[in-house]
Amino acid sequence: MPEKIAILGSTGSIGRSTLNVIAQHPDEFEVVALAAGGNVREMVEQARTFKPKLISMATKEAAEQVQREVGQEVRVIYGEDAPVEVASHPEASFVVSAIVGSKGLVPTLAAIRAGKKVGLANKETLVSAGHIVAAEAKKRQVPLLPIDSEHSAIFQCLNGERISEVRRLIVTASGGAFRDWTREQIENATVEQALKHPNWSMGAKVTIDSATLMNKGLEVIEAHWLFDLPYEKIDVIIHPQSIIHSMVEFQDGAVMAQLGTPDMRVPIQYALSYPNRLPLQTERLDFVALSRLDFRPPDLERFPCLKMAYEAGKTGGTMPTVLNAANEVAVQSFLAGECPFPVIEELVERALSAHEVVHNPTLEEIMEADRWARAFARESLIRIT
Amino acid sequence: MPEKIAILGSTGSIGRSTLNVIAQHPDEFEVVALAAGGNVREMVEQARTFKPKLISMATKEAAEQVQREVGQEVRVIYGEDAPVEVASHPEASFVVSAIVGSKGLVPTLAAIRAGKKVGLANKETLVSAGHIVAAEAKKRQVPLLPIDSEHSAIFQCLNGERISEVRRLIVTASGGAFRDWTREQIENATVEQALKHPNWSMGAKVTIDSATLMNKGLEVIEAHWLFDLPYEKIDVIIHPQSIIHSMVEFQDGAVMAQLGTPDMRVPIQYALSYPNRLPLQTERLDFVALSRLDFRPPDLERFPCLKMAYEAGKTGGTMPTVLNAANEVAVQSFLAGECPFPVIEELVERALSAHEVVHNPTLEEIMEADRWARAFARESLIRIT
Repeated sequence: MPEKIAILGSTGSIGRSTLNVIAQHPDEFEVVALAAGGNVREMVEQARTFKPKLISMATKEAAEQVQREVGQEVRVIYGEDAPVEVASHPEASFVVSAIVGSKGLVPTLAAIRAGKKVGLANKETLVSAGHIVAAEAKKRQVPLLPIDSEHSAIFQCLNGERISEVRRLIVTASGGAFRDWTREQIENATVEQALKHPNWSMGAKVTIDSATLMNKGLEVIEAHWLFDLPYEKIDVIIHPQSIIHSMVEFQDGAVMAQLGTPDMRVPIQYALSYPNRLPLQTERLDFVALSRLDFRPPDLERFPCLKMAYEAGKTGGTMPTVLNAANEVAVQSFLAGECPFPVIEELVERALSAHEVVHNPTLEEIMEADRWARAFARESLIRIT
Repeated sequence: MPEKIAILGSTGSIGRSTLNVIAQHPDEFEVVALAAGGNVREMVEQARTFKPKLISMATKEAAEQVQREVGQEVRVIYGEDAPVEVASHPEASFVVSAIVGSKGLVPTLAAIRAGKKVGLANKETLVSAGHIVAAEAKKRQVPLLPIDSEHSAIFQCLNGERISEVRRLIVTASGGAFRDWTREQIENATVEQALKHPNWSMGAKVTIDSATLMNKGLEVIEAHWLFDLPYEKIDVIIHPQSIIHSMVEFQDGAVMAQLGTPDMRVPIQYALSYPNRLPLQTERLDFVALSRLDFRPPDLERFPCLKMAYEAGKTGGTMPTVLNAANEVAVQSFLAGECPFPVIEELVERALSAHEVVHNPTLEEIMEADRWARAFARESLIRIT
């Protein structure tokens, strides 16, 4: 029986890589539902190739355009609740959560509540509502399978091991586009420069988050919830080549690492096929061509976002929600050319300082903190610029 | 219930490290029997600390000396069959096989036949009689737990994985004392120079084998039997820092690696405590101090022993026995100052060329090939020098 898959965010970078993996294994995987935003052309092409039974688009207009192209055999829906319907499609056994940003939270939670296995690429789900999502997954015994390369690496290193014997997780970071830039250079960085990731080809949001190291901060918070470990046991190290995707150090001193070329299809397929490993057509790691791997500590002076993320994570409650929401607004503003690069960290810092944390928040309180942080960041942006 | 341990080769490098691990975990491990050669002083000290019930020494004289010192509560035996008695001590549940060279074979086989778990540091056991040892262990469902750092690393990388999904093993090699020497320099190397291993502190035999890369060749043959993989799936890579202890590449392109400081107590303890990991007082891996890891292909022109080992392994039968036996004679001769360094590879090459391989040999045929190769190497040595 093939694994029946629903993809939230099928036209994005992770969504498209997921479909590439599925296409390589037609006997193992089958697409049943796809959710996207406004990319009609891509969705129509995906629908023709993968024949889903349900499609959701963000707007009525996009949904109607898709419906016209794919014919009446496919149900096409739209609106705010449409991704929830995709996530809880009765035939789906596995939901890939790859909508970027905090709007991925509600449909991912819906997938968990519907008892689906969840492949988690949307990190905001755990950053914003980690205690709710982790508790829900535990209660329903739903596996949360990490899809980004770092958490997949840690998950692979923990294969056959006990979490109680872990001394620390070592999350590797490429260092992003500005790894070797001075603070002054970073302050004058353009959008184009920030979008030049040294190793990975990814979406715009996560590429900017890599440049600020906020991406690594969000990953630390995500790791805290995924692997149920305190922040004191989660370290970050800069590894420019992005070959070691992350590591786990155990109490006997042994360190396990997962390595590979930078190809998101490896962690995606691992999540889909776990605990098996299927063959995958990827570039093989060539240690001779590679020649060397480097390591250095992260510089929290040049990249304060990582420090703020640790602090928000340790404070907990609604603090990581605010970190994430303010960051989303700030990154969008930077990408739209509305503010210089250092305003990203400034907006996040202001939001964290102004926020009155709610401990052990409900989903509604998280939503409220998210809305507050976005509004606060937008207002601060106007005041600053 | 503590694991009850017998150690073959307790006064050697691996034996002493094993006792160090045992001393750190008195509730987990208990020594019941120790076998050594002629090191009376060390054995007496070990006996006083660990209170074994049985001790074996190589000679009557050594046994009597030990007996005088430790008193009549401990049984002290000697002679050729004495290590077999240690290996099959009725109270032992785990036998650490750490006698150097091919004389480790018979007692290790005795441990397997007695149904003990076996921690294998003696690589000649698998090199000389891999098909017999592997078949015997399988038949009696006795776990063979690797104790050298490379095979332990591979074993750790395979934790929770399936051997059928492995694309290849990547055995790392420091490159030994002459890693960066020219062929001409190597040809004039002294014993003192060859004994300077860049990373590991080990016994003399294995340190010389590291300098010729024969050690890596023996490890490749051992890996073939331990993990039941063809030679085409076992690669060697030079990694000067000896931090990555070995790796496994899977069919999805993912590579798992085990890293650590060069400390034999880690693989020893992993074998003893498997599948658990106990705390261990060791130097922690510091990636920042480490700064970088390098890789390069092995140079088979400068180090022909590695090539010969692959060829002997692929030919199979008694060929690896001859490789190993001729090498033992040659290394002893070099260490005794009886021949220059390149004569090691020359003796091995001559023995392999002259040997008429016996396929699927019995233990007696292996012993015969071993004796033949030793005699042949000694004669050749006289003719060459």
